[in-house]
Amino acid sequence: MATKNPPRAQNIALLTDFGTSDPYVGAMKGVILGLCPEATLVDICHEIHPQAVGQAAYVLSTAIPYFPPGTVHLVVVDPGVGSQRRPIVVQTERTLYVAPDNGVLSLGLRQDPARLAIHLTEQAYRLSRISATFHGRDIFAPAAAHLACGTAPSQMGTPIPPSDLRTLPTIEPQPQADGTWLGEILHIDRFGNLITNFQVREPQVPIALMVAEQRIEKLSRAFADVAAGELVAYVGSSGYLEIAVREGNAARSLGLSVGEPVQVIGLP
Amino acid sequence: MATKNPPRAQNIALLTDFGTSDPYVGAMKGVILGLCPEATLVDICHEIHPQAVGQAAYVLSTAIPYFPPGTVHLVVVDPGVGSQRRPIVVQTERTLYVAPDNGVLSLGLRQDPARLAIHLTEQAYRLSRISATFHGRDIFAPAAAHLACGTAPSQMGTPIPPSDLRTLPTIEPQPQADGTWLGEILHIDRFGNLITNFQVREPQVPIALMVAEQRIEKLSRAFADVAAGELVAYVGSSGYLEIAVREGNAARSLGLSVGEPVQVIGLP
Amino acid sequence: MATKNPPRAQNIALLTDFGTSDPYVGAMKGVILGLCPEATLVDICHEIHPQAVGQAAYVLSTAIPYFPPGTVHLVVVDPGVGSQRRPIVVQTERTLYVAPDNGVLSLGLRQDPARLAIHLTEQAYRLSRISATFHGRDIFAPAAAHLACGTAPSQMGTPIPPSDLRTLPTIEPQPQADGTWLGEILHIDRFGNLITNFQVREPQVPIALMVAEQRIEKLSRAFADVAAGELVAYVGSSGYLEIAVREGNAARSLGLSVGEPVQVIGLP
Repeated sequence: MATKNPPRAQNIALLTDFGTSDPYVGAMKGVILGLCPEATLVDICHEIHPQAVGQAAYVLSTAIPYFPPGTVHLVVVDPGVGSQRRPIVVQTERTLYVAPDNGVLSLGLRQDPARLAIHLTEQAYRLSRISATFHGRDIFAPAAAHLACGTAPSQMGTPIPPSDLRTLPTIEPQPQADGTWLGEILHIDRFGNLITNFQVREPQVPIALMVAEQRIEKLSRAFADVAAGELVAYVGSSGYLEIAVREGNAARSLGLSVGEPVQVIGLP
Repeated sequence: MATKNPPRAQNIALLTDFGTSDPYVGAMKGVILGLCPEATLVDICHEIHPQAVGQAAYVLSTAIPYFPPGTVHLVVVDPGVGSQRRPIVVQTERTLYVAPDNGVLSLGLRQDPARLAIHLTEQAYRLSRISATFHGRDIFAPAAAHLACGTAPSQMGTPIPPSDLRTLPTIEPQPQADGTWLGEILHIDRFGNLITNFQVREPQVPIALMVAEQRIEKLSRAFADVAAGELVAYVGSSGYLEIAVREGNAARSLGLSVGEPVQVIGLP
Repeated sequence: MATKNPPRAQNIALLTDFGTSDPYVGAMKGVILGLCPEATLVDICHEIHPQAVGQAAYVLSTAIPYFPPGTVHLVVVDPGVGSQRRPIVVQTERTLYVAPDNGVLSLGLRQDPARLAIHLTEQAYRLSRISATFHGRDIFAPAAAHLACGTAPSQMGTPIPPSDLRTLPTIEPQPQADGTWLGEILHIDRFGNLITNFQVREPQVPIALMVAEQRIEKLSRAFADVAAGELVAYVGSSGYLEIAVREGNAARSLGLSVGEPVQVIGLP
């Protein structure tokens, strides 16, 4: 019996550092819709700080668990464009990634490991004319479109052992001589909330924090546990320890930026 | 006879204060596409000033008349996240809303009143794990997805009398002892145009305005009625009295911001 | 044999100067989805500098070659809204445009000339109530929706000879008495890269450049050809000569903005 409804195309979720004031993201979407008209396009974020591979890796890792299985994640934060860094497809149990091989996938792949990695070498899955500076449009977008419309990754290039993929130096909190732990600010969100690199698995354990010479005595459950204008520490929506000012901006109040230290006392 | 084509899913229009530099909106969209893959997602605006419920109510009220009947409006401006404020669904003659019950819907509901309000309490229509700080992703997005794919609001929780819904203190111009009316600036748009809280139903009535000690002698029909660089008052595209500088920026030229006074002389 | 599946609606690609902090783009999309629910909406850019018709023309011209044939380009950068400037539809071999007749299409039409131009005069293809200031929502969006769902341009108004369409003064580099060429900076992208008005067709010809009193001795193939922090000239992804600082911001390093001069030595 004939198939009446071909399987619908997959979602393509885009994450780049291209911003939204240039035609770059639009051109990528135009390319995709030409090759796979039925793909559903979703923006995760285009405001990654230019060429900030580590920030992109963090943002990606917090978004991917919420996308449906089969989603194609198209990630273009690519300081090495035009060099020999490899364009790759990586397949995991639930996701397909298209990205440069520069470590931007490494936090995501800790959650859901690579099963197959392909160096994108087949000309048939690229635009016919490749610029030296915009592989997002010329190589990565066409690859994502072909994957979303059903092409197998193995057709698109040469296998790479997943263990050969580049990783980021993992930033983990460090134990100190006095028994405390020293971590840092990984990301600051629109509200000025400080996302730290402490992943908290037992939020009921009593801890205290030092940040910018302010002491926070406990983990709260929610902003609403403190009064407006007060400093509050809590486990954020992605499982990391965060610091905020209720109805305020912690980054501005404390004068802090990404990379600055956070000390935790009493971590088990 | 079997239905061959199920009715297509509804549009979901998103309005939040999450900005576009974090993965928050992307995660909400991922959740929606997992639950209702055929929903069409449309962004109204994510740049509401953080936690500015009043601005969100205004922006929402000007956009909703232009969306087709049946649209699900997913509105997440939620300073009370983690407190006891209720997550709600509200159904009107032409629209479905998913939002926190904090007054953000009140200007929209003046145009098209609530027929049914539901406190979202059913676990089946939420993510299985609810964070304390991101109900947009964990409660509101899943509810919007289920509505867009056809779940009846009444299945999703407990009815609330529509008269119990929270409202915003309505800001209306006030009559003055000298016969003039005193209003204020409600919103400033990208062009620096000042949107006031005067709703003008009879633009042919002669009036004059005072703003920042400048007098404007009449209502014009369009920017083009004055020369470049001149101040112009007109009825904006949403029916409110607006003040602009043709090919300029009125907010910057006059040094004005939201909440500052506007005086109208001759209002009937 | 009967057609079982009606042709799917076309893509509509939006380019405006409306920004993303107001409900303007959302209202346009609501109008479109009400008239042509199956249209696929794609944003090219909404961050065109307010009323900058020339910048919009440039951004449009670099994006259109990457969109599939049949795409409807909805372009609303419209300083003349409310005046007598004409709302138009223009059809080319591969594209349909909806825009004000103010020259914003002229760079695009150099690549792919107008075959048919229509002054949008038919009331049936507009909203029933037209505001004086927001033709994007009231005239242009409905026209784009009707085109995407299959209405012929000729039904929507009165033909205009394509040669009557407004054009922009074309900015071309000028030959100088000393044999060099003087051009200028056309656009600065998010990365601070300087896009000049030199279109380079033979990148292998040896040239040198002067910009902000810095001399660049050659065209490189890619950023990666120079060290981090160094100035590099190359043919950008749209065929224009561009100047960047590898892993830096050329506009900030050199203190340059749009319109400033660039001198090229040795152009054939």
